[in-house]
Amino acid sequence: MKKLIDLNADAGESFGRWRLGADEQLLPLVSSVNVACGWHAGDPGTMRRSVELALRSSTALGAHPGLPDLAGFGRRSMALSPAEAADACLYQFGALRAFADATGVPVAHVKPHGAFYGLTMKQPELADALAEAVRSIDPQLIVVLLAGPTAERAIERGFRVAREAFADLDYDDEGRIIIEPDPQPKDPVACADRVLEILDGGVTAVSGKRIAVEADTICLHGDRPNAVEIAEEVRSRLGTAGVRLAPMAEVLAAR
Amino acid sequence: MKKLIDLNADAGESFGRWRLGADEQLLPLVSSVNVACGWHAGDPGTMRRSVELALRSSTALGAHPGLPDLAGFGRRSMALSPAEAADACLYQFGALRAFADATGVPVAHVKPHGAFYGLTMKQPELADALAEAVRSIDPQLIVVLLAGPTAERAIERGFRVAREAFADLDYDDEGRIIIEPDPQPKDPVACADRVLEILDGGVTAVSGKRIAVEADTICLHGDRPNAVEIAEEVRSRLGTAGVRLAPMAEVLAAR
Amino acid sequence: MKKLIDLNADAGESFGRWRLGADEQLLPLVSSVNVACGWHAGDPGTMRRSVELALRSSTALGAHPGLPDLAGFGRRSMALSPAEAADACLYQFGALRAFADATGVPVAHVKPHGAFYGLTMKQPELADALAEAVRSIDPQLIVVLLAGPTAERAIERGFRVAREAFADLDYDDEGRIIIEPDPQPKDPVACADRVLEILDGGVTAVSGKRIAVEADTICLHGDRPNAVEIAEEVRSRLGTAGVRLAPMAEVLAAR
Amino acid sequence: MKKLIDLNADAGESFGRWRLGADEQLLPLVSSVNVACGWHAGDPGTMRRSVELALRSSTALGAHPGLPDLAGFGRRSMALSPAEAADACLYQFGALRAFADATGVPVAHVKPHGAFYGLTMKQPELADALAEAVRSIDPQLIVVLLAGPTAERAIERGFRVAREAFADLDYDDEGRIIIEPDPQPKDPVACADRVLEILDGGVTAVSGKRIAVEADTICLHGDRPNAVEIAEEVRSRLGTAGVRLAPMAEVLAAR
Repeated sequence: MKKLIDLNADAGESFGRWRLGADEQLLPLVSSVNVACGWHAGDPGTMRRSVELALRSSTALGAHPGLPDLAGFGRRSMALSPAEAADACLYQFGALRAFADATGVPVAHVKPHGAFYGLTMKQPELADALAEAVRSIDPQLIVVLLAGPTAERAIERGFRVAREAFADLDYDDEGRIIIEPDPQPKDPVACADRVLEILDGGVTAVSGKRIAVEADTICLHGDRPNAVEIAEEVRSRLGTAGVRLAPMAEVLAAR
Repeated sequence: MKKLIDLNADAGESFGRWRLGADEQLLPLVSSVNVACGWHAGDPGTMRRSVELALRSSTALGAHPGLPDLAGFGRRSMALSPAEAADACLYQFGALRAFADATGVPVAHVKPHGAFYGLTMKQPELADALAEAVRSIDPQLIVVLLAGPTAERAIERGFRVAREAFADLDYDDEGRIIIEPDPQPKDPVACADRVLEILDGGVTAVSGKRIAVEADTICLHGDRPNAVEIAEEVRSRLGTAGVRLAPMAEVLAAR
Repeated sequence: MKKLIDLNADAGESFGRWRLGADEQLLPLVSSVNVACGWHAGDPGTMRRSVELALRSSTALGAHPGLPDLAGFGRRSMALSPAEAADACLYQFGALRAFADATGVPVAHVKPHGAFYGLTMKQPELADALAEAVRSIDPQLIVVLLAGPTAERAIERGFRVAREAFADLDYDDEGRIIIEPDPQPKDPVACADRVLEILDGGVTAVSGKRIAVEADTICLHGDRPNAVEIAEEVRSRLGTAGVRLAPMAEVLAAR
Repeated sequence: MKKLIDLNADAGESFGRWRLGADEQLLPLVSSVNVACGWHAGDPGTMRRSVELALRSSTALGAHPGLPDLAGFGRRSMALSPAEAADACLYQFGALRAFADATGVPVAHVKPHGAFYGLTMKQPELADALAEAVRSIDPQLIVVLLAGPTAERAIERGFRVAREAFADLDYDDEGRIIIEPDPQPKDPVACADRVLEILDGGVTAVSGKRIAVEADTICLHGDRPNAVEIAEEVRSRLGTAGVRLAPMAEVLAAR
C-alpha cells in the first residue's frame, strides 16, 4: 500500500449572495485545495477569502478553472477547442494567482472543474493544451488529471502531472468518473474504504469491474453535504493505516 | 513645453463574435496599450491576441479592468465598495498577466476603464484601494489616474502613479472628463491641439475655463471610429514639436 | 386601522447550484410573491418551479426584475437611463410570464428588486419609465413602488400602483428604506409591531422620526434567515387584529 | 418547383457597444426575421429596436433563442437536458414577446440558434421538448426545425413546424448543416442556385450526394458579411422563377 498521498478538496464555490461548502472546516482536513475562479463559481471576494483560508489552514493552493457556465455550475459539457480550453485555463489561473500574490501564497497546481475535467478525460488533445498552458506560465506548476490513460499520456509527454482518483464518485468500466450535477451525501465509511482501495492500486467500477489506478492525489467534493464528515473519516482511516498526507509537490517528488 | 510623454490607447475591446477597434493599426502608433480584461470587453482569445500584438508592436502592455457590465461596456457607473473595487482590479489584472506571462511580456501598468475610472475620479478612497491592490502584487506596477487632485493625492501617499490627460474627451469645470457611452469621430487637428495644450500644462474645459494639468500620459480611445487618424495626426504634431514618445515607466523615471 | 392588506415576499432567489430562501414554507404565508427573473437571481428552472409553487400556494404571482448583477445580487446601484430601466423590466417580466403562461398562472404585478427598486425611490423619471413599460404590456398589471412621494406621483399620473411598506427594513428620515446587502435575522415581534404601525398609517424611522405611510402591500424579505418565523408572527398578529390578507388587485379595488 | 416560400434571416445580433449585421437593409428583403434574445446576442435595447424594425419592414417576427454563451455566440455545443432546453426556450421567447407586445407585433415563430439548433438536429427528444414548450404558450406558434427527419418526426407528433433549409450553409451526407463559427462571404449566385435547388426538392451535400429536402422556409445568415447582397440575388432569382415570398404561417396554410 502507498504510504504517502495528497488529499484535495474543491472550495471557494460560493458566489455573491449564495454560500456553498463548509470550507472553514474542510480545509484543515486536506493537504491541497482547488479554488473556483469565477466562471463556474467563486466571485473575486470569495477568491480572496479562499486564498486567505488556504494560508491559515496551511493547505497547498490550486486553481480550479471551470467552463463559462454559472447557471450549470460548470457541470454541463461544452464544445471547446484546445485553444479555447488553454485560454480559459490561463484566464482563470491568472485571476486566482493575483489574489495569491497579494496574499503571499504560491499557486501550486491547476485542476479543471466538472465538465472541463470531463473534457480532458475524453479529448487527449485538450488535456495536452491545458497542460501546455499551465507549463507556459511556470514549469513547476502541477496539472491534475484523472489517473489512467489521460494522465499517463501527459506524463509521457513531459508534463508535470498529479494523477487523481476519487473517493466519492463512481467509476464506469472505462475508468472514467461519473460527474453528478448535484452531489448527495455519501457513506463516509464507503468513501474511506475506496481511498484505501486506491492506495492499494485500484478502484471498483459501478459494474463491479476492478480498474487499476495509480494515484498521487485523491479528491473529496467540497459541495457534498457531508463533505466534512467524509474527510474526517478518511483522515482517521489513513492515520490508522499509517499513510501520511502531503501536498502534491511532495508526493510527486517521492514518486 | 514637456518634451517626453506617453501616448496610451485602449485595445482588445472585441468580444467573441464582435469586433471593435483597429488595434493592428493603432498599436504601432502609441507607446502604451491598455488591454480589456473580460468584464466590460475582451474574451480570453482576444486577450491572448492583444498581448501578442503588443509584443509585435513594441508597445508597453497594461491591464484595463472594467466594471462587470458587458452590456454597458463598463460605461455605466456602479456602486462598488473599495474592497470590491480592489478585488475586481486584482481579478482582471491577474487574468491578463497570465497571457502576458505565457507570451513573455511584462505588464507595466493598470488603468481602470470607463465608469471604473470615473469612480476613482469621484471617490478618493476607491482610488486608494485600487492603487493599494496594484502595489500589493508588484511595487513596480504603475496605476493610471486622472491628472489632477486624484492622482496628486495618490502620489503623496506613495503610490506609483501615471497622471493621465485626454486628447479626445471633453473636460468639465472641475477638471473631470466627460465619459461618452458611444464615442463619435473627433477632429484630429483639434485632438492634436489639445495634446500640445496638455504638454504646456493645461486643458480648456467645455465652458472655456482653463484647467492646469500635469500629465505623464495622454489617452486616445481605441473605439473611436477615427482613432487611427487621430493618432497619426497627434504623432505627426508631436514630432514637429520635438516631443518624444516613451512608455510610462520612462516618463516617470524622468519626472 | 386598515383591515385589508397584501403581504408580499420575494422568492425564487436560488440560482443554479445555489439555494436561497425557504420558498416552500414562506409562500403559503403571504398573499403575493415576487419571483426573481434571472438577472440578480433565478435561473429558468428555478423560475418554472417558483411559478408552479405560486400556483400550488394560491399566491398571486409577480415579476421581480433586478439589475444585471448576479455577483452583487442586484443590490449594488447602477446608472441606468429610463429607457434602459424600461427595457430591463420588459425583458425580465416577459421571461417570467412565459413560465406563467405555460403553467396557466397570470402575472399580476411587477416589483423591481434591490438597487433597481432603490433607483425608483430616487429618480422619479425612472419610476415613470418602469410604470409606463409595465402598462405598455397590460394596463391591468400593477407596479409596486415605495409608499410615499414616489408612489403618489405615479398614481397621479394614472399608473396602476401598489404602495409598499416594509416590515423588516429600516427607514431613513426621508422615508426611504435602507437596503441591506446581506439580510440578518430580525425580531419577529418587532416586525409584526411595524406591520400594525403601518396599518395605522405610519412608520418610525431609525432616528425616531414618525413618517406617514399609506400602504397597500407590506414586504417580507424571503432571503432573511428567519423569514418564515417573521411571516408566521405577522400573520398571527394580523389575525388577532382582524386584518384580512388579500392580493394587491383586491386591495387596490377596495382603495 | 414550389411557388411559395418563406425567406428568413437572423437579426438583432448586436450586443451593447458591439454592432453586427445590416438589419436595416436585410429585413425588407425577407419575409420572416429571427431576433436574438439576449443569451447568445441581443441586449434588451437591441431587442426593442429589432422588433420595431420588423414592424416597419412588415417582416414576420420570430424569437431566436440561443445557448447561454455570449463569448461563443451560441455556436459552441453544450449538454442540455430536454427540460433545460425547454426552459431556455421559454425564458428567451418570453423576453422577446414582451417587447413585441409593447410594440404591438405578434411573435409568429421560434427558431433555435446555432448550437441550440444543432442539438435539435441530433437529439429528437430535445426537439420535442422545444416544440412542446413552444406549444405550451400558444398552439399557433410555429417552431422552426431542420427540414428532414427532425422536422418530419415533430410534425407527425402534431407540432406546428416550419421545415427549414439553408441557402448559405453546407450540408453533410446525413443532411445536417455544418455550422460556421464565423461566417465568411459566399457567392450570391451559388446561394440563389441552392435556393432554387431546394424549391425543386433537394440539396447537394459537400460530398456531391443529393439529399431530398421538403422546405417551408429558407434561411439566410444575417451575420454573413455579404448577407444583403445574397438576399438581393435570391429575391431577384425567385422573382424571375415566379416564386412568391410569404411568412411561415401562410406557407404552412398552403402546405
